[in-house]
Amino acid sequence: MGNTKEAIGMSSSVEWRIQVDDGSKEILVPESKNGFQRFLAALKGLIVNFTLKICNFFKKAWKIGVDDPRKVAHCLRVGVALCVVSLFYYMRPLYEGVGGNAIWAVMTVVVVFEYTVGATLYKSLNRICATGLAGFLAIGIHWVASQSGTKIEPFILGASVFLLASAATFSKFIPVVKARFDYGVTIFILTFSLVSVSGYRVEKLIDMAHQRLATIIIGTALCMVVAMVVYPIWAGEELHFLIIRNMDKVSDSLDCCVAVYFKADEANPNSDEACSKNLEAYKSALNSKGSEDAMANFARWEPAHGLFSFNHPWKQYLKVSSALRNCAYCIEALNSCLYAENNSNSCDIIKELALTIKTMTRSSTIDMSVIKLNDSVQLLHENLKSLSTLLIPEEGPQNTTDENEHKEPVLTVSLIEVIPLVSFASLLIDIAGRVEGLVQAVEGLAKLADFKPAAEEKPGLKSVN
Amino acid sequence: MGNTKEAIGMSSSVEWRIQVDDGSKEILVPESKNGFQRFLAALKGLIVNFTLKICNFFKKAWKIGVDDPRKVAHCLRVGVALCVVSLFYYMRPLYEGVGGNAIWAVMTVVVVFEYTVGATLYKSLNRICATGLAGFLAIGIHWVASQSGTKIEPFILGASVFLLASAATFSKFIPVVKARFDYGVTIFILTFSLVSVSGYRVEKLIDMAHQRLATIIIGTALCMVVAMVVYPIWAGEELHFLIIRNMDKVSDSLDCCVAVYFKADEANPNSDEACSKNLEAYKSALNSKGSEDAMANFARWEPAHGLFSFNHPWKQYLKVSSALRNCAYCIEALNSCLYAENNSNSCDIIKELALTIKTMTRSSTIDMSVIKLNDSVQLLHENLKSLSTLLIPEEGPQNTTDENEHKEPVLTVSLIEVIPLVSFASLLIDIAGRVEGLVQAVEGLAKLADFKPAAEEKPGLKSVN
Repeated sequence: MGNTKEAIGMSSSVEWRIQVDDGSKEILVPESKNGFQRFLAALKGLIVNFTLKICNFFKKAWKIGVDDPRKVAHCLRVGVALCVVSLFYYMRPLYEGVGGNAIWAVMTVVVVFEYTVGATLYKSLNRICATGLAGFLAIGIHWVASQSGTKIEPFILGASVFLLASAATFSKFIPVVKARFDYGVTIFILTFSLVSVSGYRVEKLIDMAHQRLATIIIGTALCMVVAMVVYPIWAGEELHFLIIRNMDKVSDSLDCCVAVYFKADEANPNSDEACSKNLEAYKSALNSKGSEDAMANFARWEPAHGLFSFNHPWKQYLKVSSALRNCAYCIEALNSCLYAENNSNSCDIIKELALTIKTMTRSSTIDMSVIKLNDSVQLLHENLKSLSTLLIPEEGPQNTTDENEHKEPVLTVSLIEVIPLVSFASLLIDIAGRVEGLVQAVEGLAKLADFKPAAEEKPGLKSVN
Repeated sequence: MGNTKEAIGMSSSVEWRIQVDDGSKEILVPESKNGFQRFLAALKGLIVNFTLKICNFFKKAWKIGVDDPRKVAHCLRVGVALCVVSLFYYMRPLYEGVGGNAIWAVMTVVVVFEYTVGATLYKSLNRICATGLAGFLAIGIHWVASQSGTKIEPFILGASVFLLASAATFSKFIPVVKARFDYGVTIFILTFSLVSVSGYRVEKLIDMAHQRLATIIIGTALCMVVAMVVYPIWAGEELHFLIIRNMDKVSDSLDCCVAVYFKADEANPNSDEACSKNLEAYKSALNSKGSEDAMANFARWEPAHGLFSFNHPWKQYLKVSSALRNCAYCIEALNSCLYAENNSNSCDIIKELALTIKTMTRSSTIDMSVIKLNDSVQLLHENLKSLSTLLIPEEGPQNTTDENEHKEPVLTVSLIEVIPLVSFASLLIDIAGRVEGLVQAVEGLAKLADFKPAAEEKPGLKSVN
């Protein structure tokens, strides 16, 4: 453990010196300099390095802004909304109108204003409803508690907070609640605790609850209006175009895949470059499930806009994208046909790798298993070869020894019958290649996490669940 | 549109009546009842229906709790933490110690306490740092503004809020900031706005900022201690075991896939049932990318625990899971070999479907394209067949007409050479089947969203980006 850390520390300091040299080439560091000069040079290097990093950061940020100006627009909208809500502080009549509780309106704007209209509406409506409901409940329970004497009062209040907070937290684990009311539940717990607990000290509880609700409604209303009027970004539209883009990408990938496969022998470097970019395009369809789910969730809070009615079937978009991902999986398989690294016992190896991670020990047998895997791939190859000799008895390129087999009626096996077997076998061979990738990843983990070698007595390939 | 809604309304009312009969069988609704009786029966049905739904909800919730008791434990922890922090209200010395600002501590506990230790630490540390930084900045700007006269003061304050809120919001679009400091940026905007704006009215600004920071530190410290001491749930451990479980599932699926393929002819319904469940198991590996990313993000905030050191390479787990997904994609392809629906022009069809969604019109040519797709699949089949006749010139089961071709030297083509071609072709055929699934999904969308039929002049298959 200690050794590893030291080694990492050493290598990073070496790397750091190289970067210093890289960043400030004008300084030639002499061998015979004193400690203070060394310190100065190092300091200068650090500063240059830091400045370079800051510059890179700003370059990246600038690129994000140029690539999608709507993101910049969103930031300006947030600034505008905050300034407008600040007016409640700066103008005396407004300030006194909400009884000095303008702070809640500012808070609401900061927390509720999101990138898309749908997300803003989701949070706004959740916040209003949850605040209203929780305030109502808390005042009711406070009234009951205040009727039962000052000694029991804190216990009733404490028990109600405990029970309701636990129950509400639990409800977040229910998928439907999580998807639609996650934020609302948090706000419910928050408001209930605040009103219920501060009811013990604050005299005018109803006034406070009422003002809190009023300021929250002001804040959310402002957010909803700004989100929908100033340069609106609709979650539904985003989802719509994301799925269209992904479909185009999958289609381009498939196109390229076929083109590359049939032109593999012709050398055409120009089209190849464009193609290799397109070949990877389908991956964006594989990776966008999370954002699609979120957008479909937000889209249903949005009113009718543009081409989309209020009841637009956003759920169906998820089915479309799921079907599209199904296609993309297959392109994944096709792609691996293109870059076939032909090298199966695959499932045993995966089990053993799981065991390696579970016990956090380096398996001593994994190398043997990989050799076995390669052997069985070899066997599979041999089998396919012998199958091919069965199909072509004369003029076959192989010199087979068992000549008597060639005379058997197996000759009537047609290629069309063995196609499923052949493609299955080649996919098995392909999986073996991927398993080797998995082996490498796990070995990288074992190295970085400093797994101990396994004890001599091998624990066997029992289930690791 | 109107028609569709009416139809839906009708069918749902029919369904509802059936459910009423289901729920309360003792009531035989006579044909000759009057309006009031009808109303009563409907009301009773509604209540029974509602009760059934509530019961179902609680059954589901109960099942969630029984399946994973740690979720229940988490809810109780939240309740305990809230009750402990409430003591600041109930006990006078504590209440006066934080100058009556105990409300911020309660709020912090509600907002910061998350399911895993990592998530709680992430939010806690982000909240403390962001509050400190923002408060410091806001007080500095407030001091500058107060020196420049009462007329300019609100403008300086407003401009600073606008600029900093916009910049901070923009920083959330930078992936690194989003992954590590998303919550911190929100809290930064919140605190800066609150302190800066209320500085215009509140006299003892420094006291307020100081008390806010103190109460937040109290709240977060409480959360961190409870999260780490009372029945801790570590994000790292969760990630570790999730990946192990997924590996087992992928391995089981692969095992079953091979078993089913080679035993497809033997009838063994018992093992088949267990297998068909296992066959689908790999899908959990495909769908867990989002939660794995989140957990790896949280895990790096966690201190050393159990078998994991502080520097445990959580990033590498993501590489392992990515390699595992690669295997799972392939099993996806293998699986479709098992349930081959052999029915390619695939990319054109996907493009056309994208156009359908983009223009929101039902394509009039999609049926033709599907026919063309099926024709080309047929052609591919024919080609494979003729390939097979080339390989087996004598005793082939096909009666071919062009006998002269059989004498050509193509006969020396060995099966091993055509394997990549054959498996590629069969995957193409397979993709065609998936594209049909996509067609169905898009058609479902067109139906539900009430797309108009496309205009007669077909817009052509131009790029739809």
